Amino acid sequence: MNLVYQGKTKDVYALEDGNYLLKFKDDVTGVNGVFDPGANTVGLSMEGAGKAGLRLTKFFFEKLNQMGIPTHFIDADLDQVTMTVKKAAPFGKGLEVICRFRAVGSFLRRYEMYAEDGQALDALVEVTLKDDDRNDPPISKDALDMLGILSKEEYEILKDLTKQIGNIVKDELAKKGLELYDIKFEFGRVGEDHHIALIDEISGGNMRAYRNNTRVEPLELTKIMVQED
Amino acid sequence: MNLVYQGKTKDVYALEDGNYLLKFKDDVTGVNGVFDPGANTVGLSMEGAGKAGLRLTKFFFEKLNQMGIPTHFIDADLDQVTMTVKKAAPFGKGLEVICRFRAVGSFLRRYEMYAEDGQALDALVEVTLKDDDRNDPPISKDALDMLGILSKEEYEILKDLTKQIGNIVKDELAKKGLELYDIKFEFGRVGEDHHIALIDEISGGNMRAYRNNTRVEPLELTKIMVQED
Repeated sequence: MNLVYQGKTKDVYALEDGNYLLKFKDDVTGVNGVFDPGANTVGLSMEGAGKAGLRLTKFFFEKLNQMGIPTHFIDADLDQVTMTVKKAAPFGKGLEVICRFRAVGSFLRRYEMYAEDGQALDALVEVTLKDDDRNDPPISKDALDMLGILSKEEYEILKDLTKQIGNIVKDELAKKGLELYDIKFEFGRVGEDHHIALIDEISGGNMRAYRNNTRVEPLELTKIMVQED
Repeated sequence: MNLVYQGKTKDVYALEDGNYLLKFKDDVTGVNGVFDPGANTVGLSMEGAGKAGLRLTKFFFEKLNQMGIPTHFIDADLDQVTMTVKKAAPFGKGLEVICRFRAVGSFLRRYEMYAEDGQALDALVEVTLKDDDRNDPPISKDALDMLGILSKEEYEILKDLTKQIGNIVKDELAKKGLELYDIKFEFGRVGEDHHIALIDEISGGNMRAYRNNTRVEPLELTKIMVQED
């Protein structure tokens, strides 16, 4: 088992059978000790954050797999805090795909001239480049195509999957009285047919969830969403 | 004749017949005395810049009108350095629409992780908000629609017109041995049917033109493109 990549919130190991093992860490993105799913830096370490992230990811990925929505998920080991996944090729050097139900975060900062803070958005999909040095610039369907990162056909698949999965997460949260403001996904090309599949995770670290207008932090979110075993 | 708006490079007067008069100034956008069509500040004043801008604008707008491509242009008075135009309503508080044939300027700065300096682009259209405080953020078709700035149908018309006009300007420059790298347009809603029309100007101040890999400055561009009367 070879360590092939050390990420901000998880490490990636190559398995001998061609699959990969993701080891979830207790680091979460943020700035100066304050959690922010849109941040590019590890802002703080929270004991149990890795396990909580994995637990919620397992919950959602199993649900998506059952629904026939393509993901890279194979299984998870909560004791080891690891997840086994299929091999996935990123788009270019990696994209982030955001599904927005309310105008907050970077969307609001960019479009404050028009958007009201917290204004409802109808599963608005945005794609940004993973590029810390340039602060993850948003990029259009046409530019993605012209730079050879994602074809126009793939963009439409990606966008449809994002809306679909975003709404599934939103509905699951709503069942527990929570409101999803926005959520960030990663996708990749999986399998011999290079089909587009959801990769990475679905956890409190990648979304903004609110209860009675109060932000629900990642650890709390897992507790609310998934009963302890 | 009432002064209704003072812009960076031109002033706008309301005429009694409902049309508007644009008075071209000798100021051009740039930073620290260096011309930059993508800049948001007046960088320098060049004697004759207003007249040169108007002369080239007249050349292109008359051509577009003849071709049946909608513009706000009625006529121009080179001695007074003014242009009479139809009333146009902006999209929101104003959009800039860029047509790119090579990766330079803000596109390159944003997507440097993928784009080569000067890489050919196939009339790539980008829309940005006119918002100096937020450095003219790019905005997608979906976000423009959701924020009520431009419908999806209008976006497609705007994009088609931009490609069409961008290619017309590119071809005209090519006839004189010049290469168009990128060009910035403004559009508005004109007439009782609110049809989308090109507004503002088409001049050296809004494009990057090159001859033998050397940038052609605005005054020089007009001289090359339009014979003096």
